[in-house]
Amino acid sequence: MPEYKAPQRDIQFVLNDLLQMEQHYQSLPGCEDATPDMVSAIIEEGARFAERVLSPLNSVGDQQGCTFKDGEVTTPEGFRDAYQQFVEGGWPSLSHSPEFGGQGLPESIGIVINEMVGTANWSWSMYPGLSHGAMNTLEAHGTDEQKQTYLTKLVSGEWTGTMCLTEPHCGTDLGLLRTKAEPNDDGSYRISGTKIFISAGEHDMADNIIHIVLARLPDAPEGTKGISLFIVPKFMPTASGDAGERNAVSCGSLEHKMGIHGNSTCVMNFDGATGYLIGPPNKGLNCMFTFMNTARLGTALQGLAHAEWGFQNSLTYARERLQMRALNGPAAPDKAADPIIVHPEVRKMLLTQKAIAEGGRALIYYCAQLVDKVKLASEEEKALADTQLALLTPIAKAFLTELGFESANHGLQVYGGHGYISEWGMEQNVRDSRISMLYEGTTQIQALDLLGRKVLMSEGKTLMAFTKVIHRFCEAAADEPKMRAFVGPLAKHNKEWGELTQQLGMKAMMNREEVGAASVDYLMYSGYVTLAYFWARMAQVAQQKLAEGSGDAAFYRAKLTTARFYFERMLPRTRSLVETMLSGSDNLMALDEDHFAF
Amino acid sequence: MPEYKAPQRDIQFVLNDLLQMEQHYQSLPGCEDATPDMVSAIIEEGARFAERVLSPLNSVGDQQGCTFKDGEVTTPEGFRDAYQQFVEGGWPSLSHSPEFGGQGLPESIGIVINEMVGTANWSWSMYPGLSHGAMNTLEAHGTDEQKQTYLTKLVSGEWTGTMCLTEPHCGTDLGLLRTKAEPNDDGSYRISGTKIFISAGEHDMADNIIHIVLARLPDAPEGTKGISLFIVPKFMPTASGDAGERNAVSCGSLEHKMGIHGNSTCVMNFDGATGYLIGPPNKGLNCMFTFMNTARLGTALQGLAHAEWGFQNSLTYARERLQMRALNGPAAPDKAADPIIVHPEVRKMLLTQKAIAEGGRALIYYCAQLVDKVKLASEEEKALADTQLALLTPIAKAFLTELGFESANHGLQVYGGHGYISEWGMEQNVRDSRISMLYEGTTQIQALDLLGRKVLMSEGKTLMAFTKVIHRFCEAAADEPKMRAFVGPLAKHNKEWGELTQQLGMKAMMNREEVGAASVDYLMYSGYVTLAYFWARMAQVAQQKLAEGSGDAAFYRAKLTTARFYFERMLPRTRSLVETMLSGSDNLMALDEDHFAF
Repeated sequence: MPEYKAPQRDIQFVLNDLLQMEQHYQSLPGCEDATPDMVSAIIEEGARFAERVLSPLNSVGDQQGCTFKDGEVTTPEGFRDAYQQFVEGGWPSLSHSPEFGGQGLPESIGIVINEMVGTANWSWSMYPGLSHGAMNTLEAHGTDEQKQTYLTKLVSGEWTGTMCLTEPHCGTDLGLLRTKAEPNDDGSYRISGTKIFISAGEHDMADNIIHIVLARLPDAPEGTKGISLFIVPKFMPTASGDAGERNAVSCGSLEHKMGIHGNSTCVMNFDGATGYLIGPPNKGLNCMFTFMNTARLGTALQGLAHAEWGFQNSLTYARERLQMRALNGPAAPDKAADPIIVHPEVRKMLLTQKAIAEGGRALIYYCAQLVDKVKLASEEEKALADTQLALLTPIAKAFLTELGFESANHGLQVYGGHGYISEWGMEQNVRDSRISMLYEGTTQIQALDLLGRKVLMSEGKTLMAFTKVIHRFCEAAADEPKMRAFVGPLAKHNKEWGELTQQLGMKAMMNREEVGAASVDYLMYSGYVTLAYFWARMAQVAQQKLAEGSGDAAFYRAKLTTARFYFERMLPRTRSLVETMLSGSDNLMALDEDHFAF
Repeated sequence: MPEYKAPQRDIQFVLNDLLQMEQHYQSLPGCEDATPDMVSAIIEEGARFAERVLSPLNSVGDQQGCTFKDGEVTTPEGFRDAYQQFVEGGWPSLSHSPEFGGQGLPESIGIVINEMVGTANWSWSMYPGLSHGAMNTLEAHGTDEQKQTYLTKLVSGEWTGTMCLTEPHCGTDLGLLRTKAEPNDDGSYRISGTKIFISAGEHDMADNIIHIVLARLPDAPEGTKGISLFIVPKFMPTASGDAGERNAVSCGSLEHKMGIHGNSTCVMNFDGATGYLIGPPNKGLNCMFTFMNTARLGTALQGLAHAEWGFQNSLTYARERLQMRALNGPAAPDKAADPIIVHPEVRKMLLTQKAIAEGGRALIYYCAQLVDKVKLASEEEKALADTQLALLTPIAKAFLTELGFESANHGLQVYGGHGYISEWGMEQNVRDSRISMLYEGTTQIQALDLLGRKVLMSEGKTLMAFTKVIHRFCEAAADEPKMRAFVGPLAKHNKEWGELTQQLGMKAMMNREEVGAASVDYLMYSGYVTLAYFWARMAQVAQQKLAEGSGDAAFYRAKLTTARFYFERMLPRTRSLVETMLSGSDNLMALDEDHFAF
């Protein structure tokens, strides 16, 4: 049966060896308490919860799914109890402000916990995950009163939250949304409309659910400039702050979907429900970006999660399953056949998953440190971190989820025909991972955001904020002979990244379709270069540790081997992307819409 | 709701314009009756059956699945009735010998019907599909008596057949199989053992099920050289040829799987069941290859099927769904937003599916003509066709199923979040397609077969049988100015294909792991070049037709545009494959088995 073991050794490597967590926290006001010992203790505790409580519920969630009856949703067996334990452990409050009951730890520690929780059981992790999004939105845009009423309850975990954006006719294009908010005399609003794809919209885990809802005020401008943000509680808070009278918001049905069965994906009907404006009128989308950026990084994590989970379980299988002999002669002559891990193509699938999981971890934890800086660093550092994060968020979201899906499929493939059978869990991993390229903005939307909005609209400045970092790394490592195999290709790619951007920028000036036509290739290219940077840095750390003779040599040698695998077997994927991204928009736009099929 | 419309226009294009079906059939003894008119009539009839009877059952099959109770399997609602109509229409007998009640039409016509039937409802198509495999095995290796007893009933469709190869501990490595066959005094055998993953192993569609079973005779040599082939009927035939007494073979359970829910995937228990040897003792695997080659081509068809199905349905959605504006300004200013088909990246996903479906159709129909030739042509032509088929079968199987899965995912992606919701059918298409890279030999096994057994063991001769064909085409088209954009890259790739093969051959002489380490990249490379050949040929035909001014100009222009898309957006994928396939086995083999994870 599938299992999850939190990769604490690798997590510590990224936090300590690679990203120098201690210095990072010491440099940020209010984070001084986050010492390595304290962080390790939190991670150990989180690992135990993920492995023992959540992981066994992963397949239960898939098999049972959520059930809907008379407007009520029942989550799979054990989900509710696990959530109680989560609340008792104080996990919802981890990275929230002490002012509202939080523990005030940096977001980057929360991300490590989210990784373990999400890898053990993605469907379950979405309940607190959406709450976290709602909390961030309230923290950033709510009034003090709203924070006291709602945020404290969310931070304690007694209540959970949702984000209600999508409507049947609009997902990406929120400008089309129709949900109405009409003012009441008491300053509240009557919210009416239908929202779909609302994760954790209704469930049996908490006493109340606080919906953050996008809607239009009367006479609001058309399009995205006429959208406002509202708080709509399932139960109206009483004077004492408890869940009181039922509000006119209800779950109409659950979606039947490919995966993440353990999470309730709801159609939510707002029938004149009472809501409260958060943030300025008609600025709802701007406020929502706070949530979206966190959510995108959270979804990037899903790519890592499915890669790690698939890797662990396919590795176990590859070591145990006996089938055929190694090409150079029997590796286990005493057995009826060799374990399939001897076969090069099986190793390739394992190493691909490993390179994605470990590389993805480095990228996401790096981004999480940027999030800390945006919140807490000096103005100058903050601006730099913000720019880097603007660039890396769409890359991490789209690139890592695409590669997470690829990884999940490699994991399944290692099992051969057995991978298709539900009991092994590999096919669930594929199904669960497939959503990640869709929600929080599809790969295609992230690609337009990256190339169009972030890179070209800043005339390349956003890109340079990161290519400079790579450039400096390459310069500094240029004299290390053992780094040549990494620094050479990385520097070449980094330069090419800039050149490609210029070429596309010039084409875009003539024809904006060129941006669209190149965008996904450009995003994937950017992802491979970004990951190459992190793999080169990890190789450097491993070499330093090996030279020092400190730590577990086998671990560092494995890092080096994986880095080499990444550079020789994955980074060359850029060669095709360069050709196709420059091939022009005409091969996509020439075909008349009516002539796609006859 | 998803729909299927048989792409008759494109089928006719491939059969008539591209592959000159009429000449092909006129050149083969016994096929003279297969005139274009007759073939068209058969296709029209088959299209009607696929569209009206099978397509509406596709989602029913997924939702209901098969149910198992007391050893009996009930297929989804409507499946049994559809099978009755299939039998009444005479479809099972299409390409089988008139001696046993067949219509004696060439296999290549059967493939066209299989495409339509399989695209409309892959799960359903597997019931007659497995029967077809059993029939081919009986036809090739059965005694006259066996053919009279079993083949006639299978050809009429009254009975169905299965292929029982896999056991719990062995799939790929059939040498490990343990099922025993002990001789009875009457010349029959007692078969004992457990087989798994038996598609259509038990169901309610037909009066009897004839299992073709791999098992070991007492004292048979170990490994693959000690495997024999047996007929094991579910019900013993009576003297009058009907289904009589129950045999000791039964379904133990159904597998729960990712997709193809409408097909029953059975654990089959043989408890001293009566069986009859087919073919010579200990030569069962050789006999099985007859089935396997047909089955592999049949599975290649699955890649095409899911690409075509996904393409049709995502095209409909892309034309209807309104979301965002075209980058160069509104395309439908009277509507709230533009249909998403205006967006370059949506078009890219549509065109990729289209290029795979149409290119795959050309490749598979071409292979089907080779099958005809192997059966019916002169000795010299037969040998040439056989060699080409040996090369193209693993390519078609693995490359087209990998691309079919990619296509199915593009189809889903076009729908955005809705693609993840079951009612649209796109996620079923992804789940159903995922099995195709696993059964009948995984992609990795096909790749070893291609590079190791087929190409290198023949010292490149098998490859040259096909690269010569491409070479001659390029030479002949070299003077056509409008073909330059296709012939140039094709000739370059064709030459490179040979050079890469030589390089890998030399590496393999030093170290056999090099074959394994390069094999999947080599196979995918081979697939892209093969498809480029067919797209170049289709472009040439389209240009000729346009120059002649004959036929529907829009259709031929669309072919040309799609060919160009293939050459500019898909063929460049070879650039990465060349780099990685030459990167050596060390980056895969260096990591110690114990150091993959810590």
